[in-house]
Amino acid sequence: MLEVEQKYRADLGKVREELLKLGASLVEAKEEVDVYFQHPCRDFAETDEALRVRRSGSDVEVSYKGPRMRSNAKARLELTASAEGDVEAVLEALGFKKVAVIKKRREYYSYGPLTVSLDDVEGLGQFVEIEAVASSERSVGEAEAEISALAERLGLRERVDATYLELYLSIFKGGV
Amino acid sequence: MLEVEQKYRADLGKVREELLKLGASLVEAKEEVDVYFQHPCRDFAETDEALRVRRSGSDVEVSYKGPRMRSNAKARLELTASAEGDVEAVLEALGFKKVAVIKKRREYYSYGPLTVSLDDVEGLGQFVEIEAVASSERSVGEAEAEISALAERLGLRERVDATYLELYLSIFKGGV
Repeated sequence: MLEVEQKYRADLGKVREELLKLGASLVEAKEEVDVYFQHPCRDFAETDEALRVRRSGSDVEVSYKGPRMRSNAKARLELTASAEGDVEAVLEALGFKKVAVIKKRREYYSYGPLTVSLDDVEGLGQFVEIEAVASSERSVGEAEAEISALAERLGLRERVDATYLELYLSIFKGGV
Repeated sequence: MLEVEQKYRADLGKVREELLKLGASLVEAKEEVDVYFQHPCRDFAETDEALRVRRSGSDVEVSYKGPRMRSNAKARLELTASAEGDVEAVLEALGFKKVAVIKKRREYYSYGPLTVSLDDVEGLGQFVEIEAVASSERSVGEAEAEISALAERLGLRERVDATYLELYLSIFKGGV
């Protein structure tokens, strides 16, 4: 599955109001704790990959994110499996190392084929992510156009191309 | 969790009969397909570790097995998480490589604190595994004594110390 998304720094109150005016519907609101892992023998910062274990209540989800595509920085392969049990212990036994824990309160809104997330991220601030799913590289352009159109309508101007992990590392570990 | 187990080559028909005479109860019978993976940068054959994805019906279980303990070859650390979705794709994206697919029909019997598995393994033959769980290294000796006592009562004499993966590799890939 290709995930196409764009993140913006924004005031969530205003965006929420605009979204509801447009007829978007709140799907759910939850706290998410994302633990990012470093690979035992690849430097994910170099390869632009990520491995994340997301816990939300009793749900556990493991996601691998491939490198952002050269043709389009907003698109990347995402593979996800849901899990139960001590996934982190299995990963650590395999040599993966925790590099960051990112906590956020997230509201998911649905707007046509798009998912809009209003994120209040601990230590990083407030962001809006607009996401579409593309089944092929060809449909990435289409998804991107839908994202841009909605961003425009919501008055989102401050694009952030870094991932939350990159933002976290730049602030808390003096990384890139 | 420390897994303590011993495997024996045996005629399943005879062992089943003995088990039922002893009052053991059949817990379940199922087909299991185990896919073993090689680590992207560690040689599991050298480190004596294993990563296995077991599918049985719609259940998916991911297990990491640590090296067999020096003090006692029958005991090793086992970490397990249940999963849903394309776990294999996530592992392959992370650089893990499939090295073996082992199919078996397994009957699980419960006998006091022990679990007895009657395994008909495709291409490898018939085996009985007796397993106990030990919470600490100290209780491993006790678990081992229980396993030996039951093996004796079941007339199991042909101990097999190799794992199914090792047996598989020795037959199908000319490995150790």
